[in-house]
Amino acid sequence: MIDFNEKAVKEQAEKLYALRGELEMVADKVCEKGVDNILFTSAGGSLAALEPFSYMMKSMSKIPVFTEIPAELMVTGNALVTDRTLAILTSKSGDTKETVAVAKWLAEKNVTTISFCGEPDSPLKAATTYSICYGEAEPHDLIAIFVLGRILYNKGEFADYPKFADELKNLGNVLVSVAKASDAKGLAYAKMFDAKDKEYQIWTGSGMTWGHTYSMAMCVLEECQWLRTKSVNSAEFFHGTIELVEKGVLVCVGMGEGPTRPLDERVIRFVEKHTDQIVVFDTKEYEFPGISDSFRWMLSPVILWAIYERAYKNLAEIRKHTLDIRRYYRRLEY
Amino acid sequence: MIDFNEKAVKEQAEKLYALRGELEMVADKVCEKGVDNILFTSAGGSLAALEPFSYMMKSMSKIPVFTEIPAELMVTGNALVTDRTLAILTSKSGDTKETVAVAKWLAEKNVTTISFCGEPDSPLKAATTYSICYGEAEPHDLIAIFVLGRILYNKGEFADYPKFADELKNLGNVLVSVAKASDAKGLAYAKMFDAKDKEYQIWTGSGMTWGHTYSMAMCVLEECQWLRTKSVNSAEFFHGTIELVEKGVLVCVGMGEGPTRPLDERVIRFVEKHTDQIVVFDTKEYEFPGISDSFRWMLSPVILWAIYERAYKNLAEIRKHTLDIRRYYRRLEY
Repeated sequence: MIDFNEKAVKEQAEKLYALRGELEMVADKVCEKGVDNILFTSAGGSLAALEPFSYMMKSMSKIPVFTEIPAELMVTGNALVTDRTLAILTSKSGDTKETVAVAKWLAEKNVTTISFCGEPDSPLKAATTYSICYGEAEPHDLIAIFVLGRILYNKGEFADYPKFADELKNLGNVLVSVAKASDAKGLAYAKMFDAKDKEYQIWTGSGMTWGHTYSMAMCVLEECQWLRTKSVNSAEFFHGTIELVEKGVLVCVGMGEGPTRPLDERVIRFVEKHTDQIVVFDTKEYEFPGISDSFRWMLSPVILWAIYERAYKNLAEIRKHTLDIRRYYRRLEY
Repeated sequence: MIDFNEKAVKEQAEKLYALRGELEMVADKVCEKGVDNILFTSAGGSLAALEPFSYMMKSMSKIPVFTEIPAELMVTGNALVTDRTLAILTSKSGDTKETVAVAKWLAEKNVTTISFCGEPDSPLKAATTYSICYGEAEPHDLIAIFVLGRILYNKGEFADYPKFADELKNLGNVLVSVAKASDAKGLAYAKMFDAKDKEYQIWTGSGMTWGHTYSMAMCVLEECQWLRTKSVNSAEFFHGTIELVEKGVLVCVGMGEGPTRPLDERVIRFVEKHTDQIVVFDTKEYEFPGISDSFRWMLSPVILWAIYERAYKNLAEIRKHTLDIRRYYRRLEY
């Protein structure tokens, strides 16, 4: 199993859990002030990683949530943004230009902002009301759960939140277990590129895990592997992209455990008949030791990502294309 | 100029304008009842065509608006949907499965629904509170303007709406004028496929016109031409897709006249340096006879589509691939 450090995965997950108290305190302060709506805004993969939370809030809460691309929001404006809006922003480097800019833009409107950064003392921290540095904690995509889960709990919309949060102590074990169990699938995917690169691949998924599948296509396969990739929501698959499916075309389906599974299954049923190249990444195939069944869907995004990680790490190895090289991004001005 | 009927374009636009009174009356009835928020929901290209209205409402109104894919909404639910929600649905055939299903789902929740259908007496009409059959009126993508513009006007958020609506009497002339003026550009685009098909192309755009660029990629190039296409919002372009740009890769940029133009311009500046194949479709290059400058941005989506139409009609001709053939869509069960 290449590029996998079991000890590190467990330690990083512990570090994430260790932030729980600080994060819940921020949630409590925000609730005291009152929240009319919640805005998710960040750039690229960071925004995609927030998608599951938007999805979760929509299905669990009466608080309106909305998602905006920073650059668009700043030039367009949005009447929903008021001083009773809570905005959630995230940036690993803490200095992503658009994200810092939108944080300042929101501050001018007295919006309460919470940022999650990988680095301490970042420009994004300086520009937001509350900022949590997650450092080496992983999966950092999950960090907002301790704020949003607690807000839902405070509002009486997620009574089981404390139990769910407690179970997240087991997350490290879950991630290790899933990584080990899914490595063979990741390797099989990677081996499809062994003799010759695929010229093109289609990725699809839905609901709670759509954001992570979009990220896999854009931030890994395009950005880090320079591979031509089309990503499309399973619910939209039949309105266009369907016509590109034929023998030899690779279709990958990412499945979580939310209520949109039937949409993914519909794609699979169709695609199986029309191409010989289909890979289904499905969190349901794996055990989540220490996690109650009723919470599995909420962990689907980060678990699916753990599965994707085995796929792209094997892919990078087989293609001899390291994941950290870029032609342009952050190398050139634009 | 192939496949262009000036008389028909003008007559269709007149038919659209003729619906104004009926549409404004629906808007008035809806306002009398009261609206807490507006939901846009439809399938595939129909949903993409509603995107500009979501964008417009966000930037002009204090009424929260939200967009949902029908299949996702029905399996997930959304706490924002109440009996004070106004839902806008559209389907040319009037029998798109998911759209009819979501209309029924919304009716159970006493949501006020307005549908726009190309066919009379459709299942979608039967399932919605108000239904307007546009028949041969075009561009039908614009039909919702007479409802939403009037709602904005009633709320005091668009004082100039009557003037704007009056000017839409000139829409036929505008469409004819733009089609003629942009045919050369559409033909030049199509000729890039003359000797040999492009294996892949990137389409990008933003804000008010993003939905139509997404549709051009998915509902025309993928669905009707079976060409591999990646579409990505200009605001997101630099977070992944950028790495695919190199000499020989075709990048198409669709530009309207809303405040997000700088995002498109940033892409163009970058792309020009890294590929020799770039086509910019820009509504700003054309005159809109009889339309005030201050209203041009609101017409950007349908005008951009008139420009795209010249591109894809020429493309279909040059590739000898008629626009009405499908391998799978509505031909097979799935």
